[in-house]
Amino acid sequence: MNLQYETINFEVIENIAVIRLNRPNSYNSLNAKMAKELLEISYECDTNNKIRSIILTGEGEKAFCAGGDLKSFYEAGNIGKHLKMVTHDLHGAITKFSRMNAPLIVAVNGVAAGAGLSFVGFADLAIAKSSATFVSAYTKAGLTPDGSSSYYLPRIIGIRKYLELVMTNKVLSSEEALAWGLLNKVYDDKNFWSETLKLADDLSKGPTLAYGKTKRLVHNSLNSTLETQMELETKMISESAETNDGQKGIQAFLKKEKPNFEGK
Amino acid sequence: MNLQYETINFEVIENIAVIRLNRPNSYNSLNAKMAKELLEISYECDTNNKIRSIILTGEGEKAFCAGGDLKSFYEAGNIGKHLKMVTHDLHGAITKFSRMNAPLIVAVNGVAAGAGLSFVGFADLAIAKSSATFVSAYTKAGLTPDGSSSYYLPRIIGIRKYLELVMTNKVLSSEEALAWGLLNKVYDDKNFWSETLKLADDLSKGPTLAYGKTKRLVHNSLNSTLETQMELETKMISESAETNDGQKGIQAFLKKEKPNFEGK
Amino acid sequence: MNLQYETINFEVIENIAVIRLNRPNSYNSLNAKMAKELLEISYECDTNNKIRSIILTGEGEKAFCAGGDLKSFYEAGNIGKHLKMVTHDLHGAITKFSRMNAPLIVAVNGVAAGAGLSFVGFADLAIAKSSATFVSAYTKAGLTPDGSSSYYLPRIIGIRKYLELVMTNKVLSSEEALAWGLLNKVYDDKNFWSETLKLADDLSKGPTLAYGKTKRLVHNSLNSTLETQMELETKMISESAETNDGQKGIQAFLKKEKPNFEGK
Repeated sequence: MNLQYETINFEVIENIAVIRLNRPNSYNSLNAKMAKELLEISYECDTNNKIRSIILTGEGEKAFCAGGDLKSFYEAGNIGKHLKMVTHDLHGAITKFSRMNAPLIVAVNGVAAGAGLSFVGFADLAIAKSSATFVSAYTKAGLTPDGSSSYYLPRIIGIRKYLELVMTNKVLSSEEALAWGLLNKVYDDKNFWSETLKLADDLSKGPTLAYGKTKRLVHNSLNSTLETQMELETKMISESAETNDGQKGIQAFLKKEKPNFEGK
Repeated sequence: MNLQYETINFEVIENIAVIRLNRPNSYNSLNAKMAKELLEISYECDTNNKIRSIILTGEGEKAFCAGGDLKSFYEAGNIGKHLKMVTHDLHGAITKFSRMNAPLIVAVNGVAAGAGLSFVGFADLAIAKSSATFVSAYTKAGLTPDGSSSYYLPRIIGIRKYLELVMTNKVLSSEEALAWGLLNKVYDDKNFWSETLKLADDLSKGPTLAYGKTKRLVHNSLNSTLETQMELETKMISESAETNDGQKGIQAFLKKEKPNFEGK
Repeated sequence: MNLQYETINFEVIENIAVIRLNRPNSYNSLNAKMAKELLEISYECDTNNKIRSIILTGEGEKAFCAGGDLKSFYEAGNIGKHLKMVTHDLHGAITKFSRMNAPLIVAVNGVAAGAGLSFVGFADLAIAKSSATFVSAYTKAGLTPDGSSSYYLPRIIGIRKYLELVMTNKVLSSEEALAWGLLNKVYDDKNFWSETLKLADDLSKGPTLAYGKTKRLVHNSLNSTLETQMELETKMISESAETNDGQKGIQAFLKKEKPNFEGK
């Protein structure tokens, strides 16, 4: 299945959705069209049960995503209003990806700047080529962070390092980003794509509903008290044990077999 | 003083309570009985003023706690309902340990899996044998985390690493768990127990009420705003200065002596 | 411009405010007067638009700030009431520094203990001499943390390491504090001050309003949900794009020039 978009390549291979930001001549920077198409793709990923894991990456060799396409924003006139529209679509996509069942792997194949860095934030798992680089860049243009980065990044790397990224626009290498806890894993450029597919394949064969519940547990946790969160854990594990995959998983555990999860 | 339990060894040595999960033939896995006994022990630790520090560890050489005893859950029939009962007791114990005055040291003597990993989360201080291992394991059986792990672990290792643990069931060595910030300290197997006792002994001679207030300050902090939290700090330090140990501590500081705290 | 204070040296050099805690014979410890003067200085920094970055450091070679001056607290009589007054002023200063536009660099030139460690917490960026040391110290005197440390430090180093600092009063070297994520950078003693000034100078030429908005975004984030935070990001970036510095920054980006920000 291949839905057609102008700024993004989207395909579903077996149970894996692959989203490729596709404006390589503009460093895959985000314009109004890309934000809208990302939102449409998030609806598809959230409602198509066949999709059980997702890869978000960039086309080409040089950039993952260089952030907002400031040229297009400037040319739109009334930039303040234009940004409201673009972020409305972008943020809509982010909330869908954050709350859907399928895990989202962000696979950083080059420069991740501005909103590109934000994408690394809202990933469920983030991996990168060893040659990739990471920079906040917003304040360099007199702007402030968007794309959920002020929500996710302080919860991943802590507020101290987050303010350093935003205020000094320090550029991180992949190895530094790994050491800072921004990435789960770095692969050399040669193995990057095969390892990305392998991880997506593993996740696409996992207990999709339990993954989704875990994502929502984590989101709830961040604004919850201990006792309320534990009550939610009780509700979730009890429900999980009664799902098809939960029943299969427990039986497989008792028989010391490998479970064959179906995502339901 | 030794209260008798079926699945747990409990003893109080001087001012230290030692809780040993005691189902070594089942990897100290948690069944309904153990959850209930842990709850009873939490009442004792919370109300017996003689107890000024607590060690939670596992009997035997191979396991700290391998998580929920899925076999017993399965055999109970109606697993969804059974899990509600088990987690009700387990979570009740966790909230008591989290909010009582005495510091809780979790001393990981072997495999910590599932709920066993959760125990590492709600510890005030966590230490381990160098041979111990750590794994989430829930989604391997099609289940979701419980035991407060979705509350504590994202606040200890961050949401990025937490989702990696839960989604990939990656196994961490003690050294990795230390590097991830999950542990305060790792000891070689030979010195592990003597070092654990030494730490518990030090804490059992500390200002117990101030420790308890600090624990509650941290809990409140996680759902508080800056100004509200500072107002609570004011209240706590003012009260602490008027306690017996506060008066002793200040006097000892001024005389450059070592204070002799009594936990009141 | 040099306002006169008794316990603090305060000067504004170009667009940089330099605050030096100035009780070197008492390890720059904080008494009631210093708390009050720090509050007055926070009003100045918050309302004087000429101030576009701030350095907080200590006079002399041995100490940054050794925490509360327990001797003066004790001699005041009624220590519980006295602490209410001192923390009222101190906490008032902290909320102002945390929410004003100008970035606050805490430059740790020696021992940072108790409230001195708290200052490292509420910094926007924290740097230190390689010879500096860090210790919580509160519970050593039977007391509990103040100065916003129970708010900021768990969000910077995580709750696990925070409880270790408070319960064991472990002393960290600068290198350890860097590894724990408490510091952004450590400089050898010789270059410490020139590097501090360089960083302050860079920040004093940045988009001051965007820095302030970023600080407030981070503060809001810590008690916000994903969707609410993204809506606030939208509001902030849209407003930023319409400021003088935002317009300049975007134009400079498009022309591949370096922007000349004016802080408005």
